[in-house]
Amino acid sequence: MVRKQPTIADVARLAGVSRTSVSFALNDRPGIAEDTKRRILAAAAELGWKPSRPARALSLGKAGAFGLVLTREPEDIGADPFFPAFIAGVEAALGERGDGLMVHVTTPDREQAVYERLAADRRVDGVLLTDLRHDDPRPALVRRLGLPAVVVGQSEWGDGLTSVSLDDRPAYVAAVRRLAELGHRRIAHVEGPQSFRHAHRRRMAWEETLRDLGLPVGPVLPGGFTAEGGARATRELLALAEPPTAIVYGNDLAATAGLSVAQELGVPVPERLSVIGYDDTPLTRYTHPPLSSARADARAWGEAAARALDGVLAGEDVAHVVLPPAEFVPRASIGPAPRP
Amino acid sequence: MVRKQPTIADVARLAGVSRTSVSFALNDRPGIAEDTKRRILAAAAELGWKPSRPARALSLGKAGAFGLVLTREPEDIGADPFFPAFIAGVEAALGERGDGLMVHVTTPDREQAVYERLAADRRVDGVLLTDLRHDDPRPALVRRLGLPAVVVGQSEWGDGLTSVSLDDRPAYVAAVRRLAELGHRRIAHVEGPQSFRHAHRRRMAWEETLRDLGLPVGPVLPGGFTAEGGARATRELLALAEPPTAIVYGNDLAATAGLSVAQELGVPVPERLSVIGYDDTPLTRYTHPPLSSARADARAWGEAAARALDGVLAGEDVAHVVLPPAEFVPRASIGPAPRP
Repeated sequence: MVRKQPTIADVARLAGVSRTSVSFALNDRPGIAEDTKRRILAAAAELGWKPSRPARALSLGKAGAFGLVLTREPEDIGADPFFPAFIAGVEAALGERGDGLMVHVTTPDREQAVYERLAADRRVDGVLLTDLRHDDPRPALVRRLGLPAVVVGQSEWGDGLTSVSLDDRPAYVAAVRRLAELGHRRIAHVEGPQSFRHAHRRRMAWEETLRDLGLPVGPVLPGGFTAEGGARATRELLALAEPPTAIVYGNDLAATAGLSVAQELGVPVPERLSVIGYDDTPLTRYTHPPLSSARADARAWGEAAARALDGVLAGEDVAHVVLPPAEFVPRASIGPAPRP
Repeated sequence: MVRKQPTIADVARLAGVSRTSVSFALNDRPGIAEDTKRRILAAAAELGWKPSRPARALSLGKAGAFGLVLTREPEDIGADPFFPAFIAGVEAALGERGDGLMVHVTTPDREQAVYERLAADRRVDGVLLTDLRHDDPRPALVRRLGLPAVVVGQSEWGDGLTSVSLDDRPAYVAAVRRLAELGHRRIAHVEGPQSFRHAHRRRMAWEETLRDLGLPVGPVLPGGFTAEGGARATRELLALAEPPTAIVYGNDLAATAGLSVAQELGVPVPERLSVIGYDDTPLTRYTHPPLSSARADARAWGEAAARALDGVLAGEDVAHVVLPPAEFVPRASIGPAPRP
């Protein structure tokens, strides 16, 4: 007699729990009591239950892949440490069961077509939406296409979609407050592309913290998250009749270029100018002086986003996931404000 | 009467050429005379020939995706501008017909399993092999698995697989020769991980050029393609009793960190130390001083690799593709050797 491969239902019966609980326990998802989980794992082991991706994919008509569509200039993605770490985190969640991540790098005019094709070809089981924009068409688009999705960002950006957020605000608030404590009164901002909600949120954190502190909302210039933009903005700021004594940048790339411009212009950092970035890229510890920045765990973010999408696909009522916020990392690029 | 959709064979017949020539012309691949190509395109237009991915995928049982498995630390990938540009190039080739790229970020111990699963699940039609290593197990592995593959690197690294190469040697040769012309005699190298064949090739280009010039083969230290490694190696080199007057690095990240270390130690660049990187990252123009580097078109490389894999999948006898080599880009970080 051929012994039948045990199913999740068999495990549920033996452990005396629901199939959903078994699924939670076997996928190591939170929200299940430890002793229940132990009972389920014991039952699964007793029955010799094994996960089987190909079988599962076939029986459920699954693609066995998630989609990530990046609508950015390749050069900008290349300079952004977020994506590889994020992708590695997604992989940590998907790799266990042999699922993969389908990556598309596209342009704004082709974006919609890419999602339509992902849905039409059933190429992926769901998508992770990053770089949310103002009036972003994607939440409505994926709904119309019936494409399960998770928003990588604040819950209010996703038009009701499940979100996984990691707040960058606290790092900016802490950075501006620290500069104020150091006596700075003219604190400028070199912002990322304001079409991105995260870049806008960073700018608002800078602006609101200055207001809270009763400080003038210093000059703000576009930096585009790029080295070129950061360099150009820094040149403009340092050429002002009353240049800022501190600049908070939208990311490390712009800030690193800003450091070099200050150096080139003979403006010593931090003696005459304090500089702060965002991302905590590997280079920040090795710029001269080392760059103050903000650390966000992009890898954990990717892993949490993939697990949330798992939950959505399982038909669970997944709550918005809130990860620990970004943390301000002070280094030698900030110091006391220069005496007037 | 329903008009039958014209095939490549129909186009070949009308143009009086082989089907392979038609495939080459329609896919805009090199190796076909311009007037032949024009004749083929005219024949295709006359017959109303159209490519059709979904139809083709269905009829051929295709996955409609290529695979890219990156066996590197996520942080290192994040700091490497190669991959996003390369992926964007692959997308340029695949996107036209709605195909995608399945990306895996993995560790050495799981690498083989990832390829095995890609093959077993028919998740991809073929794979692009990057970061070839010495005694790389992957060419034999993909053969054993029956997984079509293209090697992104020198033809001799691929054990007979079709390769698409872009030579980084000429940029290193030009860099070392330029330094020699500027009077440098102690030219050091901070190398990338020597397990990678491209990193080893860069080192050999440096070494052989010094020998050709009759110059001493200066000190060489590991830099790991990282900021940390580049900083550490630079510190060691500048602490030597006879420090080098020029350092050629394995990549820009290590070189940029090296620039900062020189600055921190009060070693003026280029007056006492000339510095050269590789990759021409966006930041190189905005370091202080701007970093000499080498430019390689990673986007074109990705596109060419995807098209070569297309050819392999079509059963064509695809020749090794050789792209224009990397080009040395001198900037203000190099100058005449200091007087003894």
